[in-house]
Amino acid sequence: MRPLRLGFVGGGPGAGIAHVHRRAARLDNRFAIVAGAFSRRTDANRAMGEELGIAPDRVYDDFAAMARAEARRPDGVECAAIVTPNSTHAAASLAFIREGIDVICDKPMAMSLDEARAMERAAAEHGVVFALTHNYSAYPMVIEARHQVLSGAIGAIRVVTVEYAHGTRNRLIEAEGDAKMAWRVDPAVAGPSTVLGDIGTHAHHLMRRVTGLEIQALSAELSTMVPGRRADDNAFVSLRFAGGARGQLWASMVAAGNGHGLRIRVFGETGSLHWDQERPDLLVLQADNAPYRVMRRGEGYLCDAARHASRTKAGNPEGFFGAFANVYADAAEVIAARREGREPDPLAASFATARDGVLAMKFIEAAVASSRAGAAWTDATLAD
Amino acid sequence: MRPLRLGFVGGGPGAGIAHVHRRAARLDNRFAIVAGAFSRRTDANRAMGEELGIAPDRVYDDFAAMARAEARRPDGVECAAIVTPNSTHAAASLAFIREGIDVICDKPMAMSLDEARAMERAAAEHGVVFALTHNYSAYPMVIEARHQVLSGAIGAIRVVTVEYAHGTRNRLIEAEGDAKMAWRVDPAVAGPSTVLGDIGTHAHHLMRRVTGLEIQALSAELSTMVPGRRADDNAFVSLRFAGGARGQLWASMVAAGNGHGLRIRVFGETGSLHWDQERPDLLVLQADNAPYRVMRRGEGYLCDAARHASRTKAGNPEGFFGAFANVYADAAEVIAARREGREPDPLAASFATARDGVLAMKFIEAAVASSRAGAAWTDATLAD
Amino acid sequence: MRPLRLGFVGGGPGAGIAHVHRRAARLDNRFAIVAGAFSRRTDANRAMGEELGIAPDRVYDDFAAMARAEARRPDGVECAAIVTPNSTHAAASLAFIREGIDVICDKPMAMSLDEARAMERAAAEHGVVFALTHNYSAYPMVIEARHQVLSGAIGAIRVVTVEYAHGTRNRLIEAEGDAKMAWRVDPAVAGPSTVLGDIGTHAHHLMRRVTGLEIQALSAELSTMVPGRRADDNAFVSLRFAGGARGQLWASMVAAGNGHGLRIRVFGETGSLHWDQERPDLLVLQADNAPYRVMRRGEGYLCDAARHASRTKAGNPEGFFGAFANVYADAAEVIAARREGREPDPLAASFATARDGVLAMKFIEAAVASSRAGAAWTDATLAD
Amino acid sequence: MRPLRLGFVGGGPGAGIAHVHRRAARLDNRFAIVAGAFSRRTDANRAMGEELGIAPDRVYDDFAAMARAEARRPDGVECAAIVTPNSTHAAASLAFIREGIDVICDKPMAMSLDEARAMERAAAEHGVVFALTHNYSAYPMVIEARHQVLSGAIGAIRVVTVEYAHGTRNRLIEAEGDAKMAWRVDPAVAGPSTVLGDIGTHAHHLMRRVTGLEIQALSAELSTMVPGRRADDNAFVSLRFAGGARGQLWASMVAAGNGHGLRIRVFGETGSLHWDQERPDLLVLQADNAPYRVMRRGEGYLCDAARHASRTKAGNPEGFFGAFANVYADAAEVIAARREGREPDPLAASFATARDGVLAMKFIEAAVASSRAGAAWTDATLAD
Repeated sequence: MRPLRLGFVGGGPGAGIAHVHRRAARLDNRFAIVAGAFSRRTDANRAMGEELGIAPDRVYDDFAAMARAEARRPDGVECAAIVTPNSTHAAASLAFIREGIDVICDKPMAMSLDEARAMERAAAEHGVVFALTHNYSAYPMVIEARHQVLSGAIGAIRVVTVEYAHGTRNRLIEAEGDAKMAWRVDPAVAGPSTVLGDIGTHAHHLMRRVTGLEIQALSAELSTMVPGRRADDNAFVSLRFAGGARGQLWASMVAAGNGHGLRIRVFGETGSLHWDQERPDLLVLQADNAPYRVMRRGEGYLCDAARHASRTKAGNPEGFFGAFANVYADAAEVIAARREGREPDPLAASFATARDGVLAMKFIEAAVASSRAGAAWTDATLAD
Repeated sequence: MRPLRLGFVGGGPGAGIAHVHRRAARLDNRFAIVAGAFSRRTDANRAMGEELGIAPDRVYDDFAAMARAEARRPDGVECAAIVTPNSTHAAASLAFIREGIDVICDKPMAMSLDEARAMERAAAEHGVVFALTHNYSAYPMVIEARHQVLSGAIGAIRVVTVEYAHGTRNRLIEAEGDAKMAWRVDPAVAGPSTVLGDIGTHAHHLMRRVTGLEIQALSAELSTMVPGRRADDNAFVSLRFAGGARGQLWASMVAAGNGHGLRIRVFGETGSLHWDQERPDLLVLQADNAPYRVMRRGEGYLCDAARHASRTKAGNPEGFFGAFANVYADAAEVIAARREGREPDPLAASFATARDGVLAMKFIEAAVASSRAGAAWTDATLAD
Repeated sequence: MRPLRLGFVGGGPGAGIAHVHRRAARLDNRFAIVAGAFSRRTDANRAMGEELGIAPDRVYDDFAAMARAEARRPDGVECAAIVTPNSTHAAASLAFIREGIDVICDKPMAMSLDEARAMERAAAEHGVVFALTHNYSAYPMVIEARHQVLSGAIGAIRVVTVEYAHGTRNRLIEAEGDAKMAWRVDPAVAGPSTVLGDIGTHAHHLMRRVTGLEIQALSAELSTMVPGRRADDNAFVSLRFAGGARGQLWASMVAAGNGHGLRIRVFGETGSLHWDQERPDLLVLQADNAPYRVMRRGEGYLCDAARHASRTKAGNPEGFFGAFANVYADAAEVIAARREGREPDPLAASFATARDGVLAMKFIEAAVASSRAGAAWTDATLAD
Repeated sequence: MRPLRLGFVGGGPGAGIAHVHRRAARLDNRFAIVAGAFSRRTDANRAMGEELGIAPDRVYDDFAAMARAEARRPDGVECAAIVTPNSTHAAASLAFIREGIDVICDKPMAMSLDEARAMERAAAEHGVVFALTHNYSAYPMVIEARHQVLSGAIGAIRVVTVEYAHGTRNRLIEAEGDAKMAWRVDPAVAGPSTVLGDIGTHAHHLMRRVTGLEIQALSAELSTMVPGRRADDNAFVSLRFAGGARGQLWASMVAAGNGHGLRIRVFGETGSLHWDQERPDLLVLQADNAPYRVMRRGEGYLCDAARHASRTKAGNPEGFFGAFANVYADAAEVIAARREGREPDPLAASFATARDGVLAMKFIEAAVASSRAGAAWTDATLAD
């Protein structure tokens, strides 16, 4: 299958996550990177273009110029990857969407619920694919967890706990001059709750993805633990799900020493599922009155979708790049299918959609409101 | 050192936890069991007396008779262990306290804050030792965790999470005729919040014990997840500590498949401490920018109090009986010292006190109030 | 059931393992310690007698006097526990066996195969119970492992690996004046291979216990890794089992930092069993093409014998004292049954027998011979 | 930096490991795949060329034609990756070496020591880079382990154990028609010891890589455990290292249920290092009288070479592709440096050399000889 032509917005030299997007795009040979607006700094922009072997005329000053020019080329990009800071996600995505170019966008989708809704509407109007890189939900064993829930392995869900708690911002890093980190705790660039926007949305999507449950109401306590910080850095959120289940989400940037710290546990009537991103190839099913069952990526007993998301045999850990590449590979399949006028492989579903992004923004806004209202239970549903 | 004379209230044949108390009392040879009111059923009472080799005239019909008679014997019990269901803790304890007999009582201390306060006052008036068996806080590595916090190993505490979540009541067991389990979900016997009384107080004490922090206010969601149950069985409690730290306590009886499920994590400015009752001999210190440090029970580098609480070398797991026996051994030391008019070994401090029990009852009552008030922040401090 | 009258040979103040024997004897209330010859040092002997509340006239100068005197008392000991250094095991055991008193003896059984055979014959002639404290083989999940093998859970066994490797003698401790440790690396007191006698026999028994296989031939490399040591401290032994399976046993006292270090893995045609003494409550069954199954002590799905060997529910770790107490409790049952002329509970089988001890001595002698012969394959079977 | 032009020998559709080589070559953008002789089956060969977007005239019928033609093109391949079954490694490598083209070859290097020596000589004569893909030794934490050994963290090494034991060939798969698996247990294609050639060499290189020790003599037991198999499938090898350390290597294809099963433990005078490929981002340093230290990939405290081999922050597991890509990235650096006439980055050293491959063949031949001689100690050193 021919690799799709891909362009990047953001990801200049030294950018934190952009190199992961590029590796993910390359791993399965489904994309060729052919254009970009990598940096507002001219030198950096040009240097990254050279490093990636991109023709100089396809290294653009900004995303608007890039969207216009590429849309007019017969060999223009078929997909744009948006890997800028959060505050540019909406504008950059819209520039490509409006040209009919499919978009892969880093999370969180936008700065506000309104922005996210506008992006969702635009993507629908223009009929393009919009994929959000909730890469942690694209691990094969997360996909298997969802399958186990749906197939009734633990009965109806009663309690869910999810946490994404690390400690990389346990000092006042924004005062230390690391630009790559600093914007993530700047509300003007990162959004109304920085801890929920930056990492809480990953936990939120993981929880929805695995359980299939939607949050009805929440009670939140957002705090700033590092003196001098202008943004929040710790969030405890208590959840009531549609259907009666209860849950809890913890997101923290001040959990010093905690490694990566993303994990989920789902408790049903008869058992529970446990997954931890630091051992991503394992999924533990703890059923009542039975030995614990440890399922492993790469094994033949997994569901089709989990096997689809895996490249090597069990025991050889695939890890972070594999999961991130699943988002790109599945997006490539859906984009190619749209452009070829065919149905995509139904297993190509590891990425988050615009609707997922909209719900995440609603979650953030409800949590901010609840916390300000003294942890009062606050509606987290969408009217539409 | 001569073993102390010990009598038991409760613990008839088949009782759940009483045999553990007896093994704990025996393990270090600091107690000899010489009297008891084990059961209200005459046959069962007598049978247990015989099994334990107790003289028939010291097997009593009830705790009141036992307290009276033993107080009058020159070789009467020096200590009474109260291992009845919760609703009898206060009355039984008071019967012995008023006779000047030291008491070791199972948790939770009482059915209400008022009851607990009355017990605390009585113990103070009569000058007796009152020890509460928060056995999980008596593990050597819990003691070490407290030492690490106090010695500044992780800096000032910012976030604490504790959970005690198991699944042994994920069915409507109270309808299945298991008397040993049923009373634990009967509010009339177990107290105003059964999930907090039965297991939440262990988590609460562990959190206070390790961190040295006191809760200022809390926001709680108590739920009943098993249809038909009259008591709560899941609790999420968000915490604000004096000094500004934040925390979260989860107690559940419906976490199906979750094993024992007691663990605590304490995050400070520069690192964190992690302890899990299912691997009790380990304590993990995760400091920033340094390899994780896994400390092990039995090693020479531990603090004096942790080494005092240990019997064998590292690698031979001591487990549950060892920790429970620490409560008995330390209570024996303090009781013996009181009776001998000397200072006790200062390391003999692994048991909870009446004040700890009073604070736990306050915690329960505040959580019930908050949950009823829609998770409103509720004061959890004592006036005195 | 009345506790049996027990006497101790060895275990003066500060002795390494004797206090564990005493705690094990007490934990289940099946023994009362009533006599002893604890130490050759008169003061130490008397002090231990007082600490244990033993009548002064039953604290003896030596085991010979004790055996004679106790055999003549109507309330004399029914069982003697031998917890001396290895070189006295045979003489002390024989003194009691010849008086018709049952014996619980620490491992290794003797200093040589000949000594062990003599003890085995004497026990048979006098009809007494002889129990060897291979306590590590008395963990509930070891018993379950045996059950899983016997019930065909992994098919016919192909490969077995067992190791008992710790590092507590990685320095020349015998030059540091710690008498408790020094005799263990003195061949005159510890036997022909100190590393195999002290810990290798535990691994050897565990392997035989779990697999039911007997060693046919072995190829060994015994080494002394610590300069200045007169005894061996590391052993690699390759094994051929009757029936064709292959195996490997590693025993080491110089595995620095290795914790306790006893674990076994058994690989059959279709799966494998994994057990580690540092997580003794777990047994992992890894079958082909199926999720790993983690079995847990205390669960209802275990075999009768494993449940018989357990005291508390799953999740509360029982550990080292529980396993050691199983040896005592089961020995008590078999001794009581013999004395009462009844059949013992068939589940009371967690302890090693004289035959097990004889086979261990044969194993040691074969390994020493093979190592001297340049790792030549050496017969390890008994003629009888 | 311009990607190097790379050609593949082997790796037709469905080949087991070739896709991993291709992903590894792509991950860091250091290679562009431009030519290949993927399969002897014409259709398969052509199909793979198309899948990879290779010009039809650079898809060759065999490696000889490819070497000749590419050497004559101005834009010919700068490096050939040999990913055929073992029996072709020598001939294919030599074809490119003799044209002055650098080679990346899968392991084991050859079918015999003589073949390997010839390859080593040819590479030296023609001055080309010869890299062997011992990918498991290219994990960042393996590199750190070597650094810890060399920096004296555990003192002089005394005992080493390494094992690579999985169960994927615990049935007679060669009778089941899976060509991808079958050749690996066919001595004519896989070599004199299939279990040592296929996986034992990985363990052998890992052991040498981490410890820096060379084997002086060995005593081996090679066995065939699966009835009907013509090759060996289990090997226990006891080792004596130059300098006096002792070791043990276990390689098995019949360790049913054992996952991937590669791990190493190195015990020195004062502590030990533990690494397991199933948790590759961790390295455990267990020093005497100190908490265990768990080091993590991605942290700033690691040595330069370990950080050089890492792409993401700690907590996001890099896994198998990352390690394999290190081999390709470092080979690219050394190849580019040779071609540019400059010194390579000294950190670019994660791959195995021809000398490593020669030593592995010597190891195999010595083990076969020892096993045939009844485990007799056999010299494993090279004269030159």
